[in-house]
Amino acid sequence: MDGSRRENDAEHSWYLGMLAMTLAEHAPPGTDLNRVVAMLLVHDIVEIDAGDTFIYDDDMLATQAERERAAADRIFGLLPAEQAKTMHALWDEFEERRTPEARFAKALDRIAPLIANHRTDGGTWQLYKVTAVQVMRNVKIIEEGSPGLAAYAARLVEQSVRQGHLAAS
Amino acid sequence: MDGSRRENDAEHSWYLGMLAMTLAEHAPPGTDLNRVVAMLLVHDIVEIDAGDTFIYDDDMLATQAERERAAADRIFGLLPAEQAKTMHALWDEFEERRTPEARFAKALDRIAPLIANHRTDGGTWQLYKVTAVQVMRNVKIIEEGSPGLAAYAARLVEQSVRQGHLAAS
Repeated sequence: MDGSRRENDAEHSWYLGMLAMTLAEHAPPGTDLNRVVAMLLVHDIVEIDAGDTFIYDDDMLATQAERERAAADRIFGLLPAEQAKTMHALWDEFEERRTPEARFAKALDRIAPLIANHRTDGGTWQLYKVTAVQVMRNVKIIEEGSPGLAAYAARLVEQSVRQGHLAAS
Repeated sequence: MDGSRRENDAEHSWYLGMLAMTLAEHAPPGTDLNRVVAMLLVHDIVEIDAGDTFIYDDDMLATQAERERAAADRIFGLLPAEQAKTMHALWDEFEERRTPEARFAKALDRIAPLIANHRTDGGTWQLYKVTAVQVMRNVKIIEEGSPGLAAYAARLVEQSVRQGHLAAS
């Protein structure tokens, strides 16, 4: 948050695990928080092979799914078969966002950079000329996992626009 | 593992969470693995205030408990009261090692640097002139949490001595 460098995947994944524990009350009732934490620890390990894809980089986004699937197959494939299956399933669940756990995990993954950019006078929004219209697409994804966190995220977006750290459109 | 730098607490905590998931079969039967993971994510957060204490630095070890307790009180105290209590209890549980979960978590925390030093031609063992006698004290702590991992750790110690990367005494 001091703006000196980007976080790496290990740091990001630890932070999200802690965020899940700390913001657990904002998950829909009945959410299995332990699976949320497990998913968050595993979700970015594919970037070892596939690299990081900036969420507003449309060219990289086009090939992201394919690159990450190949990475998941290789990396989880290093484990004994049964374990590979369990870990791969956890990663698939996160990607597919069909369960409340996956949707809450994804909401945290999306709100984290939003908070970071808000706290660093626009951060990568400024760098990549991202607009509030684009950020609000992510707020919609946050809303699928946690309406409460989405409302908070929307307030941060409004504030950032007002402060001149995020272009309205 | 490439020896270029020390890991930071966030990286270390993420790695231990993944290690717990991957080595779950080496936990005693009935261990609640989710609490192990939660404990490992939280266990080093006190180092924000208390700093890192090298496990073979006797001077630092003498004041470690007091420094870390003060840090836990301050850091967890930032949370709402109920949450502060839950997180603090998780940290206490890890430190006290009275539950199978805490003993398994501590075993992972102790085997991780042992693996790292073995893989980096002695690493911090060489730097701080640590002996196998000292490392075997940690293997004893690993044994309390997981006899299987302790047996593996003891083999790594023997190999390291044989390879000349760890002084026997």
